Amino acid sequence: MNAPVSTHDVSLMPLPAGVSLGSGRLAVTGALRVFLRGHDDARLRAGISRALCRLEERTGLAFARRPDSEYAFAENAATATCVIDCAASGSPVPILGEDESYALEISSTQATLRAPTVLGALHGLETLLQLLRSDAGGWYLPEAKIDDRPRFPWRGLMIDVVRHWQPLDVIKRNLNGMALVKLNVLHLHLTDDQGFRIESKTCPRLHELGSDGHYFTHEQIREIIAYAAERGIRVVPEFDIPGHATSWLVGHPELASAPGPYGIERGRGIFDPVLDPTNPKVYEILEKFLGEMAALFPDAYLHIGGDENNGVHWSANPGIQAFIREHRLQDNAGLHAHFNGRIHKILAQHGKQLVGWDEILHPSLPAGSVVHSWRGAAGVAEATRHGFACIRSNGYYINLSVPVSEHYLTDPMPSDIPLAAAQEKLVLGGEATMWSEWVTPEIIDSRIWPRTAAIAERFWSPREASDVADMYRRLQIISRRLEEAGLRHESYVDPALRRFAGDTATPADLAALRMVTDLLEPVTLDPRNETQKHIDLLAPLAGLVDCARSDNPAARAFADLVDTALTVKSASAADLAALTQQLTGWKAAAILLATGLCERSPRLNEALPLIQALVAASEVGLEAVEALGAKRMLAAGWRETQLAKLAAAAVPHVAAELAVIAALQQLVAAAAVGSAPAQPGSCS
Amino acid sequence: MNAPVSTHDVSLMPLPAGVSLGSGRLAVTGALRVFLRGHDDARLRAGISRALCRLEERTGLAFARRPDSEYAFAENAATATCVIDCAASGSPVPILGEDESYALEISSTQATLRAPTVLGALHGLETLLQLLRSDAGGWYLPEAKIDDRPRFPWRGLMIDVVRHWQPLDVIKRNLNGMALVKLNVLHLHLTDDQGFRIESKTCPRLHELGSDGHYFTHEQIREIIAYAAERGIRVVPEFDIPGHATSWLVGHPELASAPGPYGIERGRGIFDPVLDPTNPKVYEILEKFLGEMAALFPDAYLHIGGDENNGVHWSANPGIQAFIREHRLQDNAGLHAHFNGRIHKILAQHGKQLVGWDEILHPSLPAGSVVHSWRGAAGVAEATRHGFACIRSNGYYINLSVPVSEHYLTDPMPSDIPLAAAQEKLVLGGEATMWSEWVTPEIIDSRIWPRTAAIAERFWSPREASDVADMYRRLQIISRRLEEAGLRHESYVDPALRRFAGDTATPADLAALRMVTDLLEPVTLDPRNETQKHIDLLAPLAGLVDCARSDNPAARAFADLVDTALTVKSASAADLAALTQQLTGWKAAAILLATGLCERSPRLNEALPLIQALVAASEVGLEAVEALGAKRMLAAGWRETQLAKLAAAAVPHVAAELAVIAALQQLVAAAAVGSAPAQPGSCS
Repeated sequence: MNAPVSTHDVSLMPLPAGVSLGSGRLAVTGALRVFLRGHDDARLRAGISRALCRLEERTGLAFARRPDSEYAFAENAATATCVIDCAASGSPVPILGEDESYALEISSTQATLRAPTVLGALHGLETLLQLLRSDAGGWYLPEAKIDDRPRFPWRGLMIDVVRHWQPLDVIKRNLNGMALVKLNVLHLHLTDDQGFRIESKTCPRLHELGSDGHYFTHEQIREIIAYAAERGIRVVPEFDIPGHATSWLVGHPELASAPGPYGIERGRGIFDPVLDPTNPKVYEILEKFLGEMAALFPDAYLHIGGDENNGVHWSANPGIQAFIREHRLQDNAGLHAHFNGRIHKILAQHGKQLVGWDEILHPSLPAGSVVHSWRGAAGVAEATRHGFACIRSNGYYINLSVPVSEHYLTDPMPSDIPLAAAQEKLVLGGEATMWSEWVTPEIIDSRIWPRTAAIAERFWSPREASDVADMYRRLQIISRRLEEAGLRHESYVDPALRRFAGDTATPADLAALRMVTDLLEPVTLDPRNETQKHIDLLAPLAGLVDCARSDNPAARAFADLVDTALTVKSASAADLAALTQQLTGWKAAAILLATGLCERSPRLNEALPLIQALVAASEVGLEAVEALGAKRMLAAGWRETQLAKLAAAAVPHVAAELAVIAALQQLVAAAAVGSAPAQPGSCS
Repeated sequence: MNAPVSTHDVSLMPLPAGVSLGSGRLAVTGALRVFLRGHDDARLRAGISRALCRLEERTGLAFARRPDSEYAFAENAATATCVIDCAASGSPVPILGEDESYALEISSTQATLRAPTVLGALHGLETLLQLLRSDAGGWYLPEAKIDDRPRFPWRGLMIDVVRHWQPLDVIKRNLNGMALVKLNVLHLHLTDDQGFRIESKTCPRLHELGSDGHYFTHEQIREIIAYAAERGIRVVPEFDIPGHATSWLVGHPELASAPGPYGIERGRGIFDPVLDPTNPKVYEILEKFLGEMAALFPDAYLHIGGDENNGVHWSANPGIQAFIREHRLQDNAGLHAHFNGRIHKILAQHGKQLVGWDEILHPSLPAGSVVHSWRGAAGVAEATRHGFACIRSNGYYINLSVPVSEHYLTDPMPSDIPLAAAQEKLVLGGEATMWSEWVTPEIIDSRIWPRTAAIAERFWSPREASDVADMYRRLQIISRRLEEAGLRHESYVDPALRRFAGDTATPADLAALRMVTDLLEPVTLDPRNETQKHIDLLAPLAGLVDCARSDNPAARAFADLVDTALTVKSASAADLAALTQQLTGWKAAAILLATGLCERSPRLNEALPLIQALVAASEVGLEAVEALGAKRMLAAGWRETQLAKLAAAAVPHVAAELAVIAALQQLVAAAAVGSAPAQPGSCS
């Protein structure tokens, strides 16, 4: 136990707190049976049933069933392949801070899973499934001892279902994914300027006029909550107020701080419309609406947003400014705090704790509120210094399209601001945030997964787990599991590219297009917002950039190859040959497209500069590899010329860019050093 | 107009009744606007909206929207890209025999779609979408005149949701596919021995005890009916009685002809349990249940199955036999007819027309009943001779895994039994039937699509449309459209193969496995049922055979290449080189798997004989190609030896077989002829 948490023998994600592997193996065959030794309930049985079903699909084995089609359990522990010993149910709908630990012991004759609650047992089943292996001898579980518990109790994924509507099936398959990597909070961002995505029975104009008909009904919300609870996941709703509130005002312009009329927002950004905290009607409607939502969502926490209220309409409204003066609220921030105080009271009446983004932090914020920090580590330090519990999302914005290693190496605890022990206890965990400006239901999985698995590890595993290369290795394995659980982050690409390429694309064109696409990545959020401003939220998202993915394994594999080749003073002939083969392949694919399909496909034609950039970049790479191999003297200025070509090839087009420029720069630098006349024998 | 219906200029499926193309082009840009000239209703607008949305996704264009997010229409005909002139609504929920015709005229300035009903307009929109083309100059519609109407009014797809449960999303995406190819009847096979897949509020024990919890609620059925009606599709339910009725008897054993108890059937085949037509309680429950269903399903037709009642339990029950004698019903068939007569009366009270499989045909079958013929052309002739309307499914059993050309060349009108004109009028059309013994929701699309598009053409297009090669060409194009509409017949393969191959598979392994899989096809139904008897309906279907598809384009492309090479007396060097390249690739892929992944993957290891068969078959092919190229004398018995090797390679394993044996046999035969000493100069 407590063996090193990162080893090539363990491909688990998240890494357990303690793990040791032995050399024995427990065979997994069609005769596999489970025995329930301790607590027994429907949620546990459903979890076991799902696990067995997934095991069947992976192995092709069929386990015995009862006449009613349920899996047959072992009659006693002695005849069981797997004994599950669960002490108690835990809360049927999960609550913050429950014991989620489990212990797993696998010998060559039996696996035993012990857990104090069903939550722990569910986590243990996921670990068990991740341990499954095979070879010519068949399927088996390795001998192992695992003792595991989460580092943080709040491990979330936020999905913005507003900017682009994400229906029930998207939510369900993402809940499947969350369960696989032991995330336990689904945060639903339900209202914003661009839509009011939840049915209100008390104030129906909200969803009727604010949603284009795209919203969750109460029944669907109950379905989501039940589905999540079955998987050990809490559901925390967010209703963003007082800003980000345009969609509230479409049906209720009387609540606004400036004259209407209001229409659903179709663009991205920060907008002026904001509720008027001086208007009693605002609290009347919020009392009704929040009361309704408090009854609908069982979780003890309710998120009220509170971010990015720019104050423009408040400042322009003399009545509101007079209110601020009369009530000595000092400024717009004071008014916002006053508003939050009133909302806090409403929530307290319903037994709910208030959660809000960074901006709610104010001297008058009521105790017990939770600050959701999105702007930086300082927010976490500041909130906890004032005694507020805190969730961190800064560093986990998966919609930014930055390498997942950046997220992985961000700890919920600020790394450069020391926290007192009391403050550390207030850091509940973190949430990955999927803002949906650039994702349709088709694309969203690829922006969340598999990358969020690495963030889930950050929230679950010991702080010491920080081997980036091993994280990337394990990410590719968990990625398979996530697809098997119904996510489509990988499988959406080929159909989307086929549609993008159009009917004149041949199989060779499509193979080349896939190869090229796998070397691209989306530009990060700000440049995308800037260069694709003309694409509003109603326009289709079906371009090349939507098929390109951050941290693409193909681009990473090339970078690894370059690293390997350059770690020794003189790159091996085999490494150089492998690099030449890849670069030659890229160049050929790009030329095929540039001189063929681009002429026939109007959409690919728009991306022609990117394809030409790949030709140029491949040529630079080939020249560098050739120089490295021949160890020949390079002309003066060669390095600069090549780097300039790479800089030109690095320019984004249609919101995508080549993901292999850095590796190529390394190659050029190495070739230039290798050709320096100071090195004897380097001239050919 | 009335130009040839099959031409490479037209890639429509189904082919229109009349079509002529010009050389002009109507540009499709973001400025595209529709104008509604005639009738205007919500169903038409929804259809236009879906069409525009699909157009956006294919082109990446964004069309103008109104503030409420609906597409903006043109203000008058003069400024419209497309004028839709629809005369009337037609029935809001489609009924048999409505006018579904439409006329489309596309000039270089405008497209005009005229239709007497919204049904026709919806069909015309599908044709319009299929006409979209692109080149370097952008997107456009070709100048065209199309005058189109269906040959048969009943063009169906039956989905068996019993043997393997197929939930709502499967049904919806298949309705999308049906609309694309102008099918207009979804026949839901809702009850059978293996499950009772519909909620009954009047007799809840039926679904509660007969379904394992997998059934459609009334609300879901209404959702299906509305979704179908929006797309111009009728929904005809089938409740299979008196046989195929085990699931009825689980909750109501008192209705049976033999003592229970009864459990849901988990196997395939024909089973003995059958309702007891002599028991008044049977009619009591059927009156309640069928009345409930008659109210739920608006269609005028209700299918009562009636097939494969083996009579075992009736013959063994003295009471039933006595009833037959007392009522002078002659035999079990007479009793079945007596039962149908009573059911007919119940249905008539609810204004429904009875539909049943072949076996309902009997001298006493009430007039107005519809015979659904599944056993052969004789059934169509016989039923219509007795004045019954008839739907044909014989020849359209897409679950058999036979080449779709066989279905395509089967006409609903018997080809070898002449029908009188009055009989011909009684042939309403046909239905493709998807029995679900071997399909899960993951696999089902690949068994239905794109193949059913060819059957849809048989039901819609003029009888003369019968160019098989052109059908296969167009099938690949419509296949893209079907995937874009949400079907997964193509995109499910790679994820399923990744899961099948397991985590030790490298990208090269997966590429090889995909290449090999694309050369396989499932064995036909009977041998599959025979060799995989051990796989019951609860076992996972996730094997290699489940990734193999009939009519795989890769296998067909090879056969085409062989045909091309052999049509000239002496095959061209280029053709032979192409054949060599393919065969070499297959052999390499198969050897890679046989000597690598098979050792690590227990599941692939089971398929080793198939992979070895591909190595052997490729070697035979390579030898034949070499002989053809060298025109050398072959050893005596060469032909026989090679054909024997192919016969060995043709043996199925794990319910799959090589789909390229016939083409390889052709190659061997040609090589053997080419090497005959009679041909001068053929010795090298």
